Amino acid sequence: MKDNVEKKFMEQLNEWIKKVQPLNQTAYDDALAYMDTLTKPQGSLGRLELLAAQLSGIRGAKQPSVHPAAVVVMAADHGIAQAGVSAYPQEVTAQMVLNFMHGGAAINVFARQIHAEVTVVDLGVACDVEQLVASSNELQVMKESDVKTKLEIRKIRYGTANMLEQPAMTREEALQAILTGIEVAETAIARGALCIIPGEMGIGNTTSSSAIVALMEDKTADEVTGPGTGVIGEHFARKRALIQQVMERHRPKVKDGLDVLASVGGLEIAGLVGLIIGAAAFRVPILLDGFICGAAAIIARDLCPNSEAYMIAGHQSQEPGHQVVLDLLGKQPLLKLDLRLGEGSGAALAYPLLEAACRMIGEMATFEKAGVSNK
Amino acid sequence: MKDNVEKKFMEQLNEWIKKVQPLNQTAYDDALAYMDTLTKPQGSLGRLELLAAQLSGIRGAKQPSVHPAAVVVMAADHGIAQAGVSAYPQEVTAQMVLNFMHGGAAINVFARQIHAEVTVVDLGVACDVEQLVASSNELQVMKESDVKTKLEIRKIRYGTANMLEQPAMTREEALQAILTGIEVAETAIARGALCIIPGEMGIGNTTSSSAIVALMEDKTADEVTGPGTGVIGEHFARKRALIQQVMERHRPKVKDGLDVLASVGGLEIAGLVGLIIGAAAFRVPILLDGFICGAAAIIARDLCPNSEAYMIAGHQSQEPGHQVVLDLLGKQPLLKLDLRLGEGSGAALAYPLLEAACRMIGEMATFEKAGVSNK
Repeated sequence: MKDNVEKKFMEQLNEWIKKVQPLNQTAYDDALAYMDTLTKPQGSLGRLELLAAQLSGIRGAKQPSVHPAAVVVMAADHGIAQAGVSAYPQEVTAQMVLNFMHGGAAINVFARQIHAEVTVVDLGVACDVEQLVASSNELQVMKESDVKTKLEIRKIRYGTANMLEQPAMTREEALQAILTGIEVAETAIARGALCIIPGEMGIGNTTSSSAIVALMEDKTADEVTGPGTGVIGEHFARKRALIQQVMERHRPKVKDGLDVLASVGGLEIAGLVGLIIGAAAFRVPILLDGFICGAAAIIARDLCPNSEAYMIAGHQSQEPGHQVVLDLLGKQPLLKLDLRLGEGSGAALAYPLLEAACRMIGEMATFEKAGVSNK
Repeated sequence: MKDNVEKKFMEQLNEWIKKVQPLNQTAYDDALAYMDTLTKPQGSLGRLELLAAQLSGIRGAKQPSVHPAAVVVMAADHGIAQAGVSAYPQEVTAQMVLNFMHGGAAINVFARQIHAEVTVVDLGVACDVEQLVASSNELQVMKESDVKTKLEIRKIRYGTANMLEQPAMTREEALQAILTGIEVAETAIARGALCIIPGEMGIGNTTSSSAIVALMEDKTADEVTGPGTGVIGEHFARKRALIQQVMERHRPKVKDGLDVLASVGGLEIAGLVGLIIGAAAFRVPILLDGFICGAAAIIARDLCPNSEAYMIAGHQSQEPGHQVVLDLLGKQPLLKLDLRLGEGSGAALAYPLLEAACRMIGEMATFEKAGVSNK
């Protein structure tokens, strides 16, 4: 019976994966050729021109648009948090969900700046978030704004199991979280989103991401472990040792990306995998945030190689594992500002560059039209 | 008589230089301390936090604002252009001024995105720009927008002299251009600008900037010469040789930064120097663009050391001389996207990060207010 459900989920996922097509090469080439006719020395807008061409290839249009963007923050708790891998206690996950709902977190601020709606998806917070939200109306810190935060309760379980002792979740649960992510992407795109900005909240999720990247890329814990929210000294050494222990426990048993995700991942990370595949299926660019999002990206790429072309690296996090991810994806980050916050904050900060790339190709005058001499 | 005018201009400039005060250290420190109370791991917004603190120090306020920005594009021609140092003919300077007026250039597009007014200042274009503009109404490529381009004719001379043969301009002319730049900054700030984005247009001005940086920093032509608008191969070798020749001619005679500016600079570069000093005098941040703006920045710093603290490096250009400039100023660029366009385009692209820094410190909730557990 259980196997049947897993099989059904896997078939549904495979249907989505089949929908993810390569970039439109004609639109990509046309965009590059057209940019050479605009009033600037050829290639002088550097990586902004390559970004514009990628967006053209994604959308299949010479003059693409990425407005509006939708920010989706996947939230879930991690059993491993009990081992003390974070500088913060586990309840901070739920407290931060409240903060998102009231508009006070960094991602709310940056989303307002770019006029993006924020949706928080509870895939596995360890308590009943909706009750917390209902009873927290005194926390009205949100600025007046027409851009509100939406909450979607799509809880699969109350946090993952402690991966030091057992798999974080079953393959079935991982698939369910991925399919939920795809559905959330589909809804956001149906509401008009032309760019998906994935974010996450989950105390303990840099630990989970380090384990994912190490298992997927055959790295040691040392190569992929960073301070996360800010663990230092002995605390950091313990985090690294725990990740090594997690890897040793699960490495012999994992046969594919889905196994890795189920064994050492998080429900919010699985949700991000779905968000990426879902956006790619609808030819919508995904502006990747930092390390946790990067861990999801390499699982998405493993399950659905075509999805890679729809990803744009928003920024490079301070976590050492993120460099491993970016090297694997072959992506250069748009920003490198020593951020290590998550929530989608780095991607939201990079979004104006995507808008600028679209405006450049859409609004600049050609040499001919402006009467400017070309070389 | 001539000397008297120079002396008068120098006195006026010195009055402005005296107005440029160090950053407000209390506001800087308060901003840093306050950011540690916001709902994010301490320091997790990396360089954005340092940027917010700098803006606080500049404005003398814990919660600074940088909106609206004013883009000022200084335009002038260079006698050295006749030697064929650019990939484009000299008339492109005036043609691009027309393009700015009609809203079709990259800087117009990026300025519209950030809701910034563009002012083009003719300090030394080699023809009568206002007549060109008047007779070019068929070139209406500007998108409908409430953000218009203004033209200010403040011509000091019809382009500089050929610096292979004589100083590009007199010290008096250089001072006059600097004072004009200060006046333009003053006007923009009086109209409400809380951030100045300097841009420039002048065929031949990477050559002039290379010579400035080489003379100021005792570098060889090889160390500071790049492709500019895109000269390659033998053409590039010739550009480098000409810069070496210019340096050899002028090096023995220049005694200070003003001499360097007058001997090998440009009228638009002198205008940028004034823009920087003027903005700093009114405690308004200057978001530096690329290499030419950087050459102006090191002259501004030489004349007015306090001005450095008001500068923010918007991006790093592909020109090798720009690295020399950034090292000297001790500034890390916000963006590194292989741009080499000028016009203020790289700074305009970086501006949303300044806005984000201000919004972060102004709008994020504290741990206490949001009821989130701190470590």
